Amino acid sequence: MKALFMMGCPELPVQTAAALYIANKLNKEGFEVTSAGNKAAISLLLNSDPEKHYIKKVMDLDRCIGALAEKTIDFDLCFVFIHSDSGISYLATIKSISKAKTIAVIFGKEIEPLIEASGDSIIIAAKAVHNPTPLRAQIDGVKSWAALKR
Amino acid sequence: MKALFMMGCPELPVQTAAALYIANKLNKEGFEVTSAGNKAAISLLLNSDPEKHYIKKVMDLDRCIGALAEKTIDFDLCFVFIHSDSGISYLATIKSISKAKTIAVIFGKEIEPLIEASGDSIIIAAKAVHNPTPLRAQIDGVKSWAALKR
Repeated sequence: MKALFMMGCPELPVQTAAALYIANKLNKEGFEVTSAGNKAAISLLLNSDPEKHYIKKVMDLDRCIGALAEKTIDFDLCFVFIHSDSGISYLATIKSISKAKTIAVIFGKEIEPLIEASGDSIIIAAKAVHNPTPLRAQIDGVKSWAALKR
Repeated sequence: MKALFMMGCPELPVQTAAALYIANKLNKEGFEVTSAGNKAAISLLLNSDPEKHYIKKVMDLDRCIGALAEKTIDFDLCFVFIHSDSGISYLATIKSISKAKTIAVIFGKEIEPLIEASGDSIIIAAKAVHNPTPLRAQIDGVKSWAALKR
């Protein structure tokens, strides 16, 4: 089973924490997790986990989108981290080029419009900017990630 | 050898990444590291490292300052994470109540006034908001943390 994280600009501190937390859960379920992001997002992940206990594989976001579009890679689950409209754009992109089941991980101050814009994706959402606890509660609500695929 | 992290409000994403990165280096040198912060700062650390590979011990920031003032705890090294004036206040506080050698870890957009205000502390500083790479380079410049304590 393969999972992809898509991460845009990491303006909000909870993004990296949520990604590391979810990666740990997915690793334990046997998923191979690839984290795709811009330079800052990837650098935050790698520096937060210098011994690679949680983050095993990273990829440039544009290169990842290119490879998905060319069908040279694909995933069972795709987690799109969303705190602004650009996250919604990535979600729409991934839906059009991948067969992955999409999961919108939504955080920030104004989450309602982002939830509305996420359509039929599985939604994990909480008002969270600096403190990841509300988002963690939503993540913990998912008992099996493997059961979500398809 | 004991080291303390002091962390205020984690507005900037690089704070948590820098703390995890430094904690790993200190752990490897045999330091016992305690991370003191406000709720959000601690929650970011714990959720970023759910299996506690890097962060072994956390403490509420106010309780930590109280215990230092009462001389019930002390440390060899104290890392104060600074991206605003409130970080400078914590640095001044720790200097007055602890014997620890202080290390100012300075980041954000305008670091010059913070560097100036840090006085005779060891300074690790880089312009870094979303991307921790410049700060990591400064951290990697320190070859031995144990050698810093006196």
